Amino acid sequence: MRENRVQTLWAEGKTVINGWLHSPSTWSAEVMAHSGWDSLVVDMQHGLMGIETTIQMLQAISTTDTVPMVRVNWNTPGDTMRLLDAGAYGVICPMIETRAECEAFVGACRFPPLGYRSLGPTRARIFAGDDYAEYANDTIITFAMIETEAGFDNRDEIMSVPGLDGVFVGIGDLRLSMTGRAGLSSADATVDAALDAILVSARAHGLKAGLFAADTDHAIDMIKRGYEFVTVMNDVSLMASAASAVVQRLRESTG
Amino acid sequence: MRENRVQTLWAEGKTVINGWLHSPSTWSAEVMAHSGWDSLVVDMQHGLMGIETTIQMLQAISTTDTVPMVRVNWNTPGDTMRLLDAGAYGVICPMIETRAECEAFVGACRFPPLGYRSLGPTRARIFAGDDYAEYANDTIITFAMIETEAGFDNRDEIMSVPGLDGVFVGIGDLRLSMTGRAGLSSADATVDAALDAILVSARAHGLKAGLFAADTDHAIDMIKRGYEFVTVMNDVSLMASAASAVVQRLRESTG
Amino acid sequence: MRENRVQTLWAEGKTVINGWLHSPSTWSAEVMAHSGWDSLVVDMQHGLMGIETTIQMLQAISTTDTVPMVRVNWNTPGDTMRLLDAGAYGVICPMIETRAECEAFVGACRFPPLGYRSLGPTRARIFAGDDYAEYANDTIITFAMIETEAGFDNRDEIMSVPGLDGVFVGIGDLRLSMTGRAGLSSADATVDAALDAILVSARAHGLKAGLFAADTDHAIDMIKRGYEFVTVMNDVSLMASAASAVVQRLRESTG
Amino acid sequence: MRENRVQTLWAEGKTVINGWLHSPSTWSAEVMAHSGWDSLVVDMQHGLMGIETTIQMLQAISTTDTVPMVRVNWNTPGDTMRLLDAGAYGVICPMIETRAECEAFVGACRFPPLGYRSLGPTRARIFAGDDYAEYANDTIITFAMIETEAGFDNRDEIMSVPGLDGVFVGIGDLRLSMTGRAGLSSADATVDAALDAILVSARAHGLKAGLFAADTDHAIDMIKRGYEFVTVMNDVSLMASAASAVVQRLRESTG
Amino acid sequence: MRENRVQTLWAEGKTVINGWLHSPSTWSAEVMAHSGWDSLVVDMQHGLMGIETTIQMLQAISTTDTVPMVRVNWNTPGDTMRLLDAGAYGVICPMIETRAECEAFVGACRFPPLGYRSLGPTRARIFAGDDYAEYANDTIITFAMIETEAGFDNRDEIMSVPGLDGVFVGIGDLRLSMTGRAGLSSADATVDAALDAILVSARAHGLKAGLFAADTDHAIDMIKRGYEFVTVMNDVSLMASAASAVVQRLRESTG
Amino acid sequence: MRENRVQTLWAEGKTVINGWLHSPSTWSAEVMAHSGWDSLVVDMQHGLMGIETTIQMLQAISTTDTVPMVRVNWNTPGDTMRLLDAGAYGVICPMIETRAECEAFVGACRFPPLGYRSLGPTRARIFAGDDYAEYANDTIITFAMIETEAGFDNRDEIMSVPGLDGVFVGIGDLRLSMTGRAGLSSADATVDAALDAILVSARAHGLKAGLFAADTDHAIDMIKRGYEFVTVMNDVSLMASAASAVVQRLRESTG
Repeated sequence: MRENRVQTLWAEGKTVINGWLHSPSTWSAEVMAHSGWDSLVVDMQHGLMGIETTIQMLQAISTTDTVPMVRVNWNTPGDTMRLLDAGAYGVICPMIETRAECEAFVGACRFPPLGYRSLGPTRARIFAGDDYAEYANDTIITFAMIETEAGFDNRDEIMSVPGLDGVFVGIGDLRLSMTGRAGLSSADATVDAALDAILVSARAHGLKAGLFAADTDHAIDMIKRGYEFVTVMNDVSLMASAASAVVQRLRESTG
Repeated sequence: MRENRVQTLWAEGKTVINGWLHSPSTWSAEVMAHSGWDSLVVDMQHGLMGIETTIQMLQAISTTDTVPMVRVNWNTPGDTMRLLDAGAYGVICPMIETRAECEAFVGACRFPPLGYRSLGPTRARIFAGDDYAEYANDTIITFAMIETEAGFDNRDEIMSVPGLDGVFVGIGDLRLSMTGRAGLSSADATVDAALDAILVSARAHGLKAGLFAADTDHAIDMIKRGYEFVTVMNDVSLMASAASAVVQRLRESTG
Repeated sequence: MRENRVQTLWAEGKTVINGWLHSPSTWSAEVMAHSGWDSLVVDMQHGLMGIETTIQMLQAISTTDTVPMVRVNWNTPGDTMRLLDAGAYGVICPMIETRAECEAFVGACRFPPLGYRSLGPTRARIFAGDDYAEYANDTIITFAMIETEAGFDNRDEIMSVPGLDGVFVGIGDLRLSMTGRAGLSSADATVDAALDAILVSARAHGLKAGLFAADTDHAIDMIKRGYEFVTVMNDVSLMASAASAVVQRLRESTG
Repeated sequence: MRENRVQTLWAEGKTVINGWLHSPSTWSAEVMAHSGWDSLVVDMQHGLMGIETTIQMLQAISTTDTVPMVRVNWNTPGDTMRLLDAGAYGVICPMIETRAECEAFVGACRFPPLGYRSLGPTRARIFAGDDYAEYANDTIITFAMIETEAGFDNRDEIMSVPGLDGVFVGIGDLRLSMTGRAGLSSADATVDAALDAILVSARAHGLKAGLFAADTDHAIDMIKRGYEFVTVMNDVSLMASAASAVVQRLRESTG
Repeated sequence: MRENRVQTLWAEGKTVINGWLHSPSTWSAEVMAHSGWDSLVVDMQHGLMGIETTIQMLQAISTTDTVPMVRVNWNTPGDTMRLLDAGAYGVICPMIETRAECEAFVGACRFPPLGYRSLGPTRARIFAGDDYAEYANDTIITFAMIETEAGFDNRDEIMSVPGLDGVFVGIGDLRLSMTGRAGLSSADATVDAALDAILVSARAHGLKAGLFAADTDHAIDMIKRGYEFVTVMNDVSLMASAASAVVQRLRESTG
Repeated sequence: MRENRVQTLWAEGKTVINGWLHSPSTWSAEVMAHSGWDSLVVDMQHGLMGIETTIQMLQAISTTDTVPMVRVNWNTPGDTMRLLDAGAYGVICPMIETRAECEAFVGACRFPPLGYRSLGPTRARIFAGDDYAEYANDTIITFAMIETEAGFDNRDEIMSVPGLDGVFVGIGDLRLSMTGRAGLSSADATVDAALDAILVSARAHGLKAGLFAADTDHAIDMIKRGYEFVTVMNDVSLMASAASAVVQRLRESTG
């Protein structure tokens, strides 16, 4: 079975620099896969792609060594399984708040006897090799998102689920849940303390900790603290910020 | 009929800051339309969208006041007409080398008796108003591309075609044609001189001059020289450059 | 945040004339948005569009002031949230039968602390403005469908859920459930009485009452009784009825 | 080979009532195919569908006995041939102005030795039968459009091309070309006389005459005069007119 | 209402030869519908098509008499209902393990009072006839999949659900669940015995038994044992095996 | 620049075993790319994919080392150029009958000064490397199709065009043109002699000879005669023949 380079990087003690995709386009996906990210997440929760385009984007990413991952729309097993069948090498599940929810999520990602994933790795077998069914349980990465106060409070129970590889923090939701304030800012002491506490729990459970950082500086700070999987911006926000910068420079000079 | 803001800006003596779309995605199109560009060109020559997606991107742009334009794939009248029917408010035609080619292009954009455009402004009428057929000839902007040595040599004949609004310089092709060197660089004296000569001709014929600039600095230089319609980068290259910058910073800080 | 014109119309004491979309086409969506409806519902329950096309149809509607709404396929929070992220300004949820189901639905439409909607208004922020997260809870309209006998019996409990804006009656399902007869006819006394009872309950709870009417006459009757949000036919049935009428006239005259 | 019911109807002395499709949707195509039209034209000239959707619409029409036809975008042989390969049983070509153009069009629709159509009836063979290549030349219907003054003047030369089955009048374009006025109105004496003259020529050459009528009354008039193939409105304009009527009635009653 | 030929074949004592679709393509669907299968299942569990393409594939199948069926992604009622609205004449639901799950599945396929399916047979009515709502409960075929040890153990309870027409065995999953070994092989005595036991139970409950066979020989064996609905390979695996055979022959002969 | 393995294989004296794609599906494309073909042609002449899907299929092929090629719809330079921009490493152009046509085709595939291809290798640069523009003229393979009697008669003039790499024989069209008989059979002495004559000419001009063979046996024969690039069947015909074989075996065994 094809290795999961995210695992390899972790084994080498490296941090995974992860990119994020919101646009339903195989072209932006392929270019992002050539832009240096270790892995790319097709985001079916807040992104705008249907499952068929998502699969085509996984194909486009597979023209490179970038690891193809997805964030599922919700903790719904049929969708999770199909994205794995389509070749996702990692799954991030949003809004996990209890151990039972985490078990349902992880179980959908693991073949029996570890889980209840249905056997039919249509594209995964083509992408990963004929021995996919044998090694998938050890190779597919599962991330449960901690992004609410309830999830934070239950983090140790959630992290104790066998087969879970890591937790991924959605600081936007976590901040909203904890402080009532929207936005990606990392300036709240409560949230900042939670990010540390989650890291401590992850270490205790032998899990990796990842997050969607507020910005590049925040990501660097989090890497230094010990987060092993960081994400900054997405395909479209990268485009928009670069576009606005160009427009602004042109406006100023034509003033 | 809805005004063409590109015309309005020109009438106010302003330079049009134009954006460029390569990704077949209505989402990146809509975000680009919110990024400050005066107009946006869906590029069917070197971009990767089919006509159906192009039309949907024109719809997405139409959620804003940004002026929807297209670069057609080639000087083929049926395609040009259909994109106008779909609501394009301006058309850039690549690789015009002779007056006859320019007449064929402009004729496809104008209803009789000025041209031979077929009447059936399906979406254009919805976008622009019920009086579209009456005013379209005065409102739709036509740009012939000067991007080969032959086109450059014939520039005055090309620019003398009635109904043509402007010329648009493809410096990549022009440089390749004139110097045998590929790339968007503006550092060739030959090309630089050609850019001036084209501007002189455009002024003489009462036409607007536009170009796809090598980079933002080049665009600013060209605006100062008198170009009234400038383009820098495209949706995907903007994304890629911003992505690479983020990745590089994260790599550097993680040693 | 962009106003929700449905709220504005209600505040002015007006009835909302709502259109309905079944065809997976941004073109019919855009034309319907130009046909005079106050709002348009993309129907993911009985319509034939996937989520990616639905989002593109929301874009197409957004070229006008018509309010973009959706009927979700089912009471599944991930899908509901994503459609809100995509810019839906109102959500109709089918087949609500209990207060708990209604709470689950409304909670998916409201950010904490009022609900459990995940924060990530990808397109909604572009469509509505940067302050979307701050005002969305007050601006997004939620309709629970009352369309079974169980839902009818529990209507007061359902309507007591905080954050619910209205109930929407599916008379086809309600009639089938109450009488065992299929079809959109409004001629059943049982159903007719139920429509009155639902209106009474809605008034008591300060909610709006909407319905999918049997036909235009029925809609007019219901408006007179007090329904504030009425729907008649859909894009494709409007087309089909007009087409059949034209064909019939031509057949008759060619005898 | 599957019969071409348009031919059959003509052989029975009947007028063909033809429908028209502008929306890129297999669902509206299938419903139109159930609405009573004898044949349906997917319009790639002024309609908004790409070729892939066009082919899927031909499939949708093929769920019924309605004859699937296309209007090609332009007189470009590669596109014409592929639409025939996809199962179109009739082709309407816009803007024919000379005998040479008509020969190019008809030749693209006929296998050698009658024409130069390339052999590869991918879907046509599935739709029509294994003997498609043997009988296609006799079964596929070709319509050249007469819709400019030049085409009108050259009508007899155009109609003399072997293999041409009929002429189809675009009265919008013809009126614009002849009178300088846009719109589908049939009230111009010049246009009206031209419609008669075209019919006379068609009779003389043994060809069928078809047209896109201004409205249903006009179509009935043309049928009475002898036109054997008439079209009124399209999928989207039928929808829009029905929608506006419903909205207007509801507005009036809520006054 | 259009007959369900699967029922007709069963009534005639025949085995149904069922095909399977994994590729999101209306073209392969249409060709498969012309390849001799009695019915075709669009597989939304392990196949790669979204719902919009699935619906278009149902249209493509409907150009023939082949019975259009689906395997739903999961036991989620909203999706099941919409696929029925889209004209599926049979539904296979994966991973049924309990009677309650089976009731939920079957209820989603039956209108009240037999189930809780919502009324809105958008395309089904066009495909099947205006009396669809009256006869659908008797015409739509429901298959619950038995493919885990738990499902096998509960088979009699599952099969006792009113309105269920048959059980369908996924031998890949069943084998994995029972033996821990992946793959479609039928060589396990445990699985083989289970296939017999399921058939016995099906007979006892008056249900049909179907399966996805390991290969053609296995299918023939199962038909002989009494299975009335068998599937072998899918569109893409058929293509791949034929392609590999051709390539191998060419390689061998080119030494 | 990424090597063109077709060139490499030829340099090693090997025959290229080429596959063919008709279905608009990235999934069948990716599986075909894993089935052992040296190269794959996306056929836009008789296949059913639009350009956007074609590009996505080129992406899917690029997940492997299989060389991505296209057959263009027709000798239209804008389309040819865009497919090259999208990463096609070889182009087959149908229906070349004269030296002028061949020059137009080859010129569209070569950057100046060898041809008139416009510079903008959007995806090609990502697929092939940043030095694409420098080496593309030497790396992209061009095949002119000889498939009519006229083309056959002019073969030596056609083959003398600088920059042409090979000729590709469409035996279906050639047979129809030469004998008036349709079908892929190779049993005609005239056609058989033409295949030899074309090979002789190709050798004389230093070009490669390819063909679409009647069947596998014919391909083997042609390889032995010296053809260096052979094609047998396509994705969908491979599927259909395998499907029919399975159905037939099942029918026979079920009596």
